[in-house]
Amino acid sequence: MPTMRLGIIGLGGAAKQMVPSFLSHPYVAITAAADPRDDARSAFAAEFGARTHATAEALCADREVDVVYIATPHQMHRDHAALAARAGKHIIIEKPMALTLEECGDIIAVAEANGVHLLVGHTHAFDAPILKMRALIREGVIGPVSMINSWNYGNFLYRPRRPEELRTDAGGGIIYNQVPHQVDVARLLGGGMVRSVRSMAWTLDPTRPTEGAHVTFLQFENGSAASLVYSGYDYFDTDEFHYWIGELGEPKRPDCHAASRRALEAMTGTGSEVAAKAGGGFGGGRRLTVPPQNEWNHPHFGVTVVSGPDGDLRQSARGVTHYGRRGAVEHPLDPPRVFPDKSGVIDEMYDAFAGLRPILHDGAWGRATMEVSEAILRSAREGREVGMSHQVPVRD
Amino acid sequence: MPTMRLGIIGLGGAAKQMVPSFLSHPYVAITAAADPRDDARSAFAAEFGARTHATAEALCADREVDVVYIATPHQMHRDHAALAARAGKHIIIEKPMALTLEECGDIIAVAEANGVHLLVGHTHAFDAPILKMRALIREGVIGPVSMINSWNYGNFLYRPRRPEELRTDAGGGIIYNQVPHQVDVARLLGGGMVRSVRSMAWTLDPTRPTEGAHVTFLQFENGSAASLVYSGYDYFDTDEFHYWIGELGEPKRPDCHAASRRALEAMTGTGSEVAAKAGGGFGGGRRLTVPPQNEWNHPHFGVTVVSGPDGDLRQSARGVTHYGRRGAVEHPLDPPRVFPDKSGVIDEMYDAFAGLRPILHDGAWGRATMEVSEAILRSAREGREVGMSHQVPVRD
Repeated sequence: MPTMRLGIIGLGGAAKQMVPSFLSHPYVAITAAADPRDDARSAFAAEFGARTHATAEALCADREVDVVYIATPHQMHRDHAALAARAGKHIIIEKPMALTLEECGDIIAVAEANGVHLLVGHTHAFDAPILKMRALIREGVIGPVSMINSWNYGNFLYRPRRPEELRTDAGGGIIYNQVPHQVDVARLLGGGMVRSVRSMAWTLDPTRPTEGAHVTFLQFENGSAASLVYSGYDYFDTDEFHYWIGELGEPKRPDCHAASRRALEAMTGTGSEVAAKAGGGFGGGRRLTVPPQNEWNHPHFGVTVVSGPDGDLRQSARGVTHYGRRGAVEHPLDPPRVFPDKSGVIDEMYDAFAGLRPILHDGAWGRATMEVSEAILRSAREGREVGMSHQVPVRD
Repeated sequence: MPTMRLGIIGLGGAAKQMVPSFLSHPYVAITAAADPRDDARSAFAAEFGARTHATAEALCADREVDVVYIATPHQMHRDHAALAARAGKHIIIEKPMALTLEECGDIIAVAEANGVHLLVGHTHAFDAPILKMRALIREGVIGPVSMINSWNYGNFLYRPRRPEELRTDAGGGIIYNQVPHQVDVARLLGGGMVRSVRSMAWTLDPTRPTEGAHVTFLQFENGSAASLVYSGYDYFDTDEFHYWIGELGEPKRPDCHAASRRALEAMTGTGSEVAAKAGGGFGGGRRLTVPPQNEWNHPHFGVTVVSGPDGDLRQSARGVTHYGRRGAVEHPLDPPRVFPDKSGVIDEMYDAFAGLRPILHDGAWGRATMEVSEAILRSAREGREVGMSHQVPVRD
């Protein structure tokens, strides 16, 4: 099999969480990375022996890069995607794909014009149990999907942030950063074609002035429907409904409600929250805690149950549970091959690179998810149902 | 305190579940009951020494009855309420209040014209933890309510039924029998005034041809919103998310998924399902299983979480959990005084009877809940948002 050489633009927290999955692929090599911060570059170079660049332009000119992973702040996604595409590089672009549907369209167009693959992710729609649920649906295990319901209550809004991450108009808050996970999962399970969106969303903490909670009804073209509930206010925690396993698959203590609020309150110095945020990237002081391998579970995003006439499917700790006519049946999965396991992203890009299968979470898919996410905000602001016009079906 | 003398019309399963709560009230006496079935009447007379009547008319003419509890099939509610009101009896009417909003209006009018109290229930909005959640909201513990989310997956559609209970146009299925619980709870927690309803509902089993699942978005006038999810298809069971406690408060085994489907399949003789249904009433062979008193928990209806800027509230096994800025805080309640505990109904009627406080779940309240329940069906059938016009606020 051919080796796929990967370059990273943006050495922040997203890249730090993604790199282990890149490295877990037998035919992927990380050959280069770009970041304007010296300390991030030198930390990365020291750890991986990869070439580093100060600019995205330089990385895109690097001849030893086949695929560019764009993990820069959201507002830079379009320009960085254009740089990569024009240099003939395939593109993995972090969610949110961009800040507007117009930007999404530009990214799709430039990738197409230059004949490069475009993948939007990671989202939790790449999680192995979610892909397994989709496969079971395709096999007809529960019959045609009726409803899809998802709850996620957690601490999102109280993780350390840069100021723009708390401004919705700059792509901050749950609409651009958490809702796309839920929408991507619901669209994958429901077939992709959302007809309309009805939602309410809330900004409940004036010190974190961006949406932190929403409740949304999605009607699909095929008659199925979904409810999506999210709260990032660090009160109730739906990981209780998922075996006390955290989002990345780590075992989680059941007594940490509001702990992120308290940790944030304890950061009193000027800029200390911003410093804490930077600490999560390369060159930062915070290490990703990796549990012992026998405690690795698959990642998840709250609790999701999908229903049909012949049963319900629910992500379990290490696979998928099918509640059917004869009771609960477990469909176990292989354990995660890496922690945290975001390997679905690199597997999907590699398979396209090697000509094995097309990309599922491509640009049109990502734009459709962004359309629903934006419509959640619009429906909430306008108090009415919002129709969709950029939806695409699941390509499986 | 005055004694309140109670007469029951309809000695089926609803009455059998309600009577222990009536008897648990120190100032309530059950003095009479009516049912057309001889065996039900004699069983009741033998157990309670109460006078029995073959007709609702005769019971309403009974001078030793102050309050009539109407637990007859839904389609009889209006006529029985009219009989009771014209005889000057106060009325407790089981949910659903009636089959149409017009019938609800007739019941309200006849009660008003005759100056009698009218209470619609039981619903799970009378559960002590739900009333406690409402009280905590009124105290400002979580601030203004933002979202209310409720999931209930259980076995409803596979409990033994009479044929009309499986016909939506005869008041069967979840819309008339389960959804009112969810709507009543959501309206109580959200203040009562629903502005609009968007829903999808499903009839997934042709042998049980009535709605068995729905997902619904409620927008309230005050800016709060709710999502309600229900499945009665006996697959996934949300009692897993409520400490494996069943709807009535009983400890529940975690391995009974689809058990009601299998029990129903085993009923092969003609009329055996109808006989099984009748077995749940007075004179029937099935006894209500009462767990040891130290295992009594409060009843619940799936899992309900209500949110505000200052926290989330969730019904716990024996009270309410407040997830706030300092973590999870338990608000314990006194244990149930009876099993199953539906005593909120009789307490509310007694307090009105004794002039202590007005009825919370009155006729206008019940009609508003019916309006939302009907709108769920209409929105699902028409694929659009439906506005409300009969809503009333919580009177507390």
